[in-house]
Amino acid sequence: MFEKYDLTKIMDDAAFEKAMTPMKERLSILQRTLRDLNIPVIIVIEGWNAAGITMSTKEIIQSLDPRGFSLHATDKATDEERARPFMWRFWIKTPSKGRIALFARSWYSRALAEKLSSIGWKKTLKDEIHSITVFERQLSDSGVIIIKFFLHISKDEQKTRLLERERNPLTAWLVTPSIWEFHHNYETYFPLIDEFIEKTDTAYAPWHIIEATDRKYTIYKVYSSLVKNLEKRIAADSEERSKKGKQKNIDKPPKNPVQRRSSAIKSYSKEECQDLLSNLQIEMLELNYLLFKRKIPFIIVYEGWDAAGKGGNITRLARYINPLGYNVLPVSAPNDYESQHHYLWRFIRHYPKAGHFAIYDRSWYGRVMVERVEGFCSESEWQRAYQEINEMEQDYVDSSGGGIVKFWLEISKEEQLKRFHQREHDPLKQYKITEEDWRNREKWDLYDAAVDEMLARTNTPHAPWIVIESDDKWYARVKTLKEVIRHVEELL
Amino acid sequence: MFEKYDLTKIMDDAAFEKAMTPMKERLSILQRTLRDLNIPVIIVIEGWNAAGITMSTKEIIQSLDPRGFSLHATDKATDEERARPFMWRFWIKTPSKGRIALFARSWYSRALAEKLSSIGWKKTLKDEIHSITVFERQLSDSGVIIIKFFLHISKDEQKTRLLERERNPLTAWLVTPSIWEFHHNYETYFPLIDEFIEKTDTAYAPWHIIEATDRKYTIYKVYSSLVKNLEKRIAADSEERSKKGKQKNIDKPPKNPVQRRSSAIKSYSKEECQDLLSNLQIEMLELNYLLFKRKIPFIIVYEGWDAAGKGGNITRLARYINPLGYNVLPVSAPNDYESQHHYLWRFIRHYPKAGHFAIYDRSWYGRVMVERVEGFCSESEWQRAYQEINEMEQDYVDSSGGGIVKFWLEISKEEQLKRFHQREHDPLKQYKITEEDWRNREKWDLYDAAVDEMLARTNTPHAPWIVIESDDKWYARVKTLKEVIRHVEELL
Repeated sequence: MFEKYDLTKIMDDAAFEKAMTPMKERLSILQRTLRDLNIPVIIVIEGWNAAGITMSTKEIIQSLDPRGFSLHATDKATDEERARPFMWRFWIKTPSKGRIALFARSWYSRALAEKLSSIGWKKTLKDEIHSITVFERQLSDSGVIIIKFFLHISKDEQKTRLLERERNPLTAWLVTPSIWEFHHNYETYFPLIDEFIEKTDTAYAPWHIIEATDRKYTIYKVYSSLVKNLEKRIAADSEERSKKGKQKNIDKPPKNPVQRRSSAIKSYSKEECQDLLSNLQIEMLELNYLLFKRKIPFIIVYEGWDAAGKGGNITRLARYINPLGYNVLPVSAPNDYESQHHYLWRFIRHYPKAGHFAIYDRSWYGRVMVERVEGFCSESEWQRAYQEINEMEQDYVDSSGGGIVKFWLEISKEEQLKRFHQREHDPLKQYKITEEDWRNREKWDLYDAAVDEMLARTNTPHAPWIVIESDDKWYARVKTLKEVIRHVEELL
Repeated sequence: MFEKYDLTKIMDDAAFEKAMTPMKERLSILQRTLRDLNIPVIIVIEGWNAAGITMSTKEIIQSLDPRGFSLHATDKATDEERARPFMWRFWIKTPSKGRIALFARSWYSRALAEKLSSIGWKKTLKDEIHSITVFERQLSDSGVIIIKFFLHISKDEQKTRLLERERNPLTAWLVTPSIWEFHHNYETYFPLIDEFIEKTDTAYAPWHIIEATDRKYTIYKVYSSLVKNLEKRIAADSEERSKKGKQKNIDKPPKNPVQRRSSAIKSYSKEECQDLLSNLQIEMLELNYLLFKRKIPFIIVYEGWDAAGKGGNITRLARYINPLGYNVLPVSAPNDYESQHHYLWRFIRHYPKAGHFAIYDRSWYGRVMVERVEGFCSESEWQRAYQEINEMEQDYVDSSGGGIVKFWLEISKEEQLKRFHQREHDPLKQYKITEEDWRNREKWDLYDAAVDEMLARTNTPHAPWIVIESDDKWYARVKTLKEVIRHVEELL
């Protein structure tokens, strides 16, 4: 893509002044419009070292209300970031509705830098390109506007600027040996970066290459591309809103039905169960230790019918995990802060650290269950979610080296009724049963169909569903622990 | 405190079993009661190395529903934590209403470890004791139950255990050279830790010294102290609720009235203002650079009348700060997640990193303004807040080495009316004026009195209030920048 750009373009003072004043006003107004329309925006500024990333960022924010944007200067990963999958640190910084997130350098620079410094680098960014396009597409699908700039200068121009910076005591410290090294390899990286940009230049997150030799021309081009694009996207957005209903055809993942009723279920007595569990406990202890030492994270998802025994099952399972190495995340309806973000945001935020377990008590599958059945999201949203969830889980596994196992706690409709009645009559358990449980029960068939589809469409090799037949709670507890052990073992 | 404890206590199996079964049940039920009453709980487990901190933690959580507690294993600070004041990492982990936060080691171990490893250590923990007691008292005042355990073993017992751990391949890696070093200095640290505990043993956050030689006795003692204390505190809490109204006498900070109306206000033309600002800009640039290099954080608080020009003033000020080095935090009513925590929690969370600015657009002063005037908190709560805020700001300055400056943007009641009318008639500004603004204006006198009291009681040497006379917006902008420069200079 780079070749077609003319790096000698300059702009005179008069033309610059004349062009910029109205442009700045338009950007100011656009920010308010975006806020009023609740549209989140991501602006990425990338480019060669010394091409003017900081300068351009400063210029953009001159026209913005600082209360409505966040600026993220992307640098080396912190401890917390390093302990989680690559895209995590960017996911958590995605803007809430109506806000602008500006990234001065971003996932692009980091993917490149971390790839370059890793051992056995094959000069291909295939995996990174996949992770990034999934990330950008998912955000775009949820309504985020993404605009990306690459500031392009020649090697000679870069050399001039780096030498200039070295002469200035206020900027000399910015010019590190690795920046010079990158400079000397300009020709080596050129085709790589060119390809990286070309492969991530999509309709939903387009790149704008800015010929950045002349300061004024750079600012003018960044501003005008930004303003024009935002205006275009706002117009497209309002058009889309008006013709709502006309849905795009969504590619759903293939169906791979999961058997929910097994005849091979045993009933255990409490004593049998305790014997079995204490044997498994020793195995689990060792595996837990190995995960910790090798810094491998592990996600366990619990879904299931009301009264299927999720709480008790989680409590028992948790006893076999090093308490300093896991977190249980009770998931209920999103709070008002969470609902300002992409629906996956609140789950990704709580990804386990390297070497830790995260147990999600209900999860992102709410999208294709309660949100689907109760109509909390549109049909196209939950239809799209199967693919989004598979992608998210795949990316998690690929980029963290960790594992996921998902439990569906199955009970029969009769068993549920029996348990509801028991709960109502036991003063210690009454708190567990609410009006909502009865209302959900009335919709059993709708939920039943949603569960079937969920299991079939998201049962993947990297993140399998395991049905836990839970009519007998002792059997269920033993099976859960066994399955965790089996999947951790496979991973090691 | 240590001397009076008998470290030879042991417990036999039968007595242990008999005592523990009902105790575990009581703890389970207590957790639910606490959740129903919306009471947050902090449990701290400290002790000598190898005294059984992990073991005791594991035992406690056996009886807890993992969905209702978080376990924090306190270790060395992460990058993010190191870049902020000492107590920040603990503040952000305080439990929301109805949840339990368990700290396996805590601010006590970290204060000691960081003190011990710092240069010029004078073997006094005076500053830490002050920070910690303020932290615990403020949380307790807001309704958090705090219970602290110290597991006490003798030097000989510790040696036996460390040697045992070294022999076991699964635990050998836990015994680091620094743990042995600490062991060899047992006698040196003994009086220091003893004093530390004694000075932080308060009615609102009591210590329980546990004779931890015998495993069973340790567990029994931890459980029984925990259960008894929680039961006592719940009883006291419900008693307090019933006799609400009977308020404790609150020590309010002295009044130090602040002049809000100055006769020395100039009016600037836009041109004069721009000249002045561009001179100040150069100064600011250099100061900004120095703060960054020396890793000193700086907080700027904006409060003021509606329409006093906070937004414009912040936008202009922000232009003179390195955009990669500041954050503007727009503060509105707490969201439902934030309101589950101490009222200072959401502000402390956003403390600036070392070398950065944080600009709070409205702040914790909402407690003594809008929450006071609108009755969103009780009188005793806002009365107490003056001291709490002073303490928070003092602790911030002391422990971060940073600065705080607070701006009160003052306009006259007539000027406000004029601006309200202007806003109503300007289509570009209409969005800025709401029904609420008019309602607030009706309560001008109530707010006026609240402002006077706020300024007088929280104008401290470490976090001064600066009145910005804002009838002339150009004057206001110049004065704000000047004051920021003056205070940053004083700090350097």
